[in-house]
Amino acid sequence: MSDLSLGSDRGALREKARKLDEADPLSAKRAEFVLDDDTVYLDGNSLGALPAVVPGRMADVVARQWGRLRIRSWTESGWWTAPERVGDRIAPLVGAAPGQVVAGDSTSVNVFKALVGAVRMAGEGRDEIVVDATTFPTDGYIAESAARLTGRRLVAADPAGIVDALGPRTAVALVNHVDYRSGRLHDLPGVTAAAHEAGALVVWDLCHSAGALPVGLDEHGVDLAVGCTYKYLNGGPGSPAFLYVRRDLQSRFDSPLPGWNSHRDPFGMSGRYEPADGAVRGRVGTPDILSMLALEAALEVWDGVPIEAVRDKSLALTDFFLECVAAYVRPGRVESITPARHGERGSQVALRCAGAGAVMETLIARGVVGDFRHPDVLRFGFTPLYVSFADTERAARVLAEVVAAGT
Amino acid sequence: MSDLSLGSDRGALREKARKLDEADPLSAKRAEFVLDDDTVYLDGNSLGALPAVVPGRMADVVARQWGRLRIRSWTESGWWTAPERVGDRIAPLVGAAPGQVVAGDSTSVNVFKALVGAVRMAGEGRDEIVVDATTFPTDGYIAESAARLTGRRLVAADPAGIVDALGPRTAVALVNHVDYRSGRLHDLPGVTAAAHEAGALVVWDLCHSAGALPVGLDEHGVDLAVGCTYKYLNGGPGSPAFLYVRRDLQSRFDSPLPGWNSHRDPFGMSGRYEPADGAVRGRVGTPDILSMLALEAALEVWDGVPIEAVRDKSLALTDFFLECVAAYVRPGRVESITPARHGERGSQVALRCAGAGAVMETLIARGVVGDFRHPDVLRFGFTPLYVSFADTERAARVLAEVVAAGT
Repeated sequence: MSDLSLGSDRGALREKARKLDEADPLSAKRAEFVLDDDTVYLDGNSLGALPAVVPGRMADVVARQWGRLRIRSWTESGWWTAPERVGDRIAPLVGAAPGQVVAGDSTSVNVFKALVGAVRMAGEGRDEIVVDATTFPTDGYIAESAARLTGRRLVAADPAGIVDALGPRTAVALVNHVDYRSGRLHDLPGVTAAAHEAGALVVWDLCHSAGALPVGLDEHGVDLAVGCTYKYLNGGPGSPAFLYVRRDLQSRFDSPLPGWNSHRDPFGMSGRYEPADGAVRGRVGTPDILSMLALEAALEVWDGVPIEAVRDKSLALTDFFLECVAAYVRPGRVESITPARHGERGSQVALRCAGAGAVMETLIARGVVGDFRHPDVLRFGFTPLYVSFADTERAARVLAEVVAAGT
Repeated sequence: MSDLSLGSDRGALREKARKLDEADPLSAKRAEFVLDDDTVYLDGNSLGALPAVVPGRMADVVARQWGRLRIRSWTESGWWTAPERVGDRIAPLVGAAPGQVVAGDSTSVNVFKALVGAVRMAGEGRDEIVVDATTFPTDGYIAESAARLTGRRLVAADPAGIVDALGPRTAVALVNHVDYRSGRLHDLPGVTAAAHEAGALVVWDLCHSAGALPVGLDEHGVDLAVGCTYKYLNGGPGSPAFLYVRRDLQSRFDSPLPGWNSHRDPFGMSGRYEPADGAVRGRVGTPDILSMLALEAALEVWDGVPIEAVRDKSLALTDFFLECVAAYVRPGRVESITPARHGERGSQVALRCAGAGAVMETLIARGVVGDFRHPDVLRFGFTPLYVSFADTERAARVLAEVVAAGT
C-alpha cells in the first residue's frame, strides 16, 4: 500500500468516524464522564473512566454523611441497605429482576460464595467443579480452593468444548462470559441449558460483559453469577463486586461466608446463625461504604440507557477499529485474536503483536491507553458510553505509526 | 442525695474535667478531627469520627488519581501496594513489626482466612476450633463455617474459662481481645501462652482494641489476628479490615481465599497458583481503593502518638465517666458491666439500664451519642484522640437527667 492510498484511506475513515459519531444515539453520554481530549482511553475494560457525578457525591458522603451525621448515617443516609440497593441498580444491566443481586466484597470472594453455594445445592452425588481452562486466573485459584474445601475434583475444560465436560458428576461449571484476554464471548444460553440438562448448576463470571452487552440472566435461567463493577460499570478502582443468585435458588443458598450482615436479624446479635431471605443472604461483613456509594453514584449514568443500544455501538466500534487497523497497519504486523463473528465478540479487541509490551508503552506515551496482557497481547477495550468513533480511528492510526516505527 | 449536694458535685466534677483536659497530652489531637461542639460523640467504638485530612485526600484520589491518571494510578499512585502499605501503618499500633499486616476485605472474611489457615497449620490430629461464647456474632458464624468446611468441631467456651477448653484436640482458639458488649478486656498474653502450651494456635479479634490500647502482637507471640479499622482507627464506614500473620508462620499460611492478588506474580496470569511470600499472601481480590486510601489518610493522625498515651487517657476517661455516673445518676438506675479493674477494661463503658433502647434515643436527641446493644445495654466508647473530659462529664450529666426524667 503506497503512502498515497494510505492518505486517502485516512481521509475516508476520518470522514466515516465523523458520520458515525454524528449518528450515535449515545454520544451525549460522553459529557457525563471526566475525559481529556489528549487521550484515547481504551482501558475501560480494566478501569472505567470517572463519571462526572462521582466527585461531588463522594465529597458529600465524606464530609456530611460520615463527618457530620457519623453513626446516624447507617440508617439516615441509607448505608445499611446500600448493598442490595446497588445490586438492584446493577440488576437491569444484566437482565435480572430486582431482589437477586447484591453488591459487596471482591469478585474472588464472590466466586467462592457462588461455587461453594452451588456445590451444596448440587448435592453429595456430584463431585466435580468444571472451570473454563482459559479463565481469568483468580477464578481458577478460587475454584481449586472451593473444590478442596468441599471435597470435589476440579476439572479444567476448554471453553469451546465445555459442554462436553458436563455430565452426571458435574456439580457446577464456572464460566467466563467474555474471555479477558481474547475478548471471545461465550455462549451463555447454550452452556446454561447444557448444564441444566446435565443436572448441574452454572456460575457465570460477568466481569467483561456487565455493562458491555445484554446478559439476560433471568431469561436464560442462569443459576448464579458474579461480576466486577470497575470495568464497564465505571464504579471506581476496586469497587465492590456483585453476586446474583436466581430467586428460586435463594432459599437453598448456603453461604460459606455467613457473616452477620447476612443474618435475618443482624442487630439481634444472636449467637445462632439464621440466614436472611433474598439477595441479602449473599452479604458477609460490614460493606465498604465509601467505595459502595461511589459505585452507586457512578451507576446513575446508566439511567435511560438501554443495554441493547450499548451493544449496538460496541459492535460498531470494534468493527470500525478492526477496519481501521486493516487499513492502516502493515499486513502481518498484528493479528486479531478477537472473533470476527458478532455473536462471539465481547467489547474489546485483542491483537497479538510482537513486542506487545513495548508497543503498549509507546502507545500510552502517545495518548492511546490500552493494556498489555502476557505474553503478547495488546488489549483495547471499547466502552460505548464514552468512546467515540473518532477516538477509535485515532487509536488505529497511532498504532500503525508505532508498529511501523518499531519495525 | 439532695439537689444541693448534686449541685456541688457538678461544680467539682466540671472543675476536675477542666483540669484533666488542661493536663491532657493528647488534647491537641482533637483539632485534627471534624467535630461539632453540640455533640458528645461516644460512638467512636462503632464508627470513628472523620479525620480532617480525609476529605481533601479523597477529593484528590477521586478527581486526579482516578479521574485523570485512571489506570496509570495502579502503579503511579501506589494503588497496587496500598494493602501492605496500609498494613504497615497499622502494625505499630498493634505491636507488630513491618511486613506482617495486610489491609483488605471485611473482618468476617479475615476471620475466615485466619481460622482456616490456622486449622491447616495445626494439622490433621487437632479437630476442634474453640471460640469465646460471648463473641461478636459474626466471629461465631464464620467459625462455624470454617469448622464445617475443614471437618472440625466448634467448641464455644466462656472467655473467663477459655484456657480450660484448650487441649490436645484444639487446633485454634478465636478470642475477642475486648468484648464488644461489656467492654471487658481479655488476657491476651495469658490465653496466647496457654494455647501455645496446649500446642494450639490462637487468632485474636482486635476490633475493639486496635487503636485503643497496646496489643503487643509480636511481644506476646500471637499467631494470627484480625481487626476492623472503622472504630478506634477512624478509617471510615466499612473501611477495610486487617489480617496479621506472624512472620515465622507466613510460609505455612495456606489461605482458603487464594485470589490473584496473593499470587507471587499476579500479572504473569498463570493458571497455577503460587502464593506470594509475606503479608501479601493474605490478600484476595482487587482492593477497594477509595476506602483503602481514605483509611490510609485517616491513619496519619496517629503519627507521633504513642499507644501507651492513648491507653493512659482511655483509662482516665472511663474512670472519670464512672465517677461522674456514680455522682449524678440515681443509685440503682444503671449498673456498669464494664470491669472496674484497669487490667480487665477496654475503652468503653457499658451500662445495663432498664429501657436502654429508649434512653439511648433520648440521649442521642440531646447530643450525647452512644449506642444501644441488645437487650439492655447502653454503650459509651471513649476515643482518646478526640473525646475530652468535659465531654465525659457532660455525657454523664445528660444521662442522669434522661434516666431521672424517665422514671
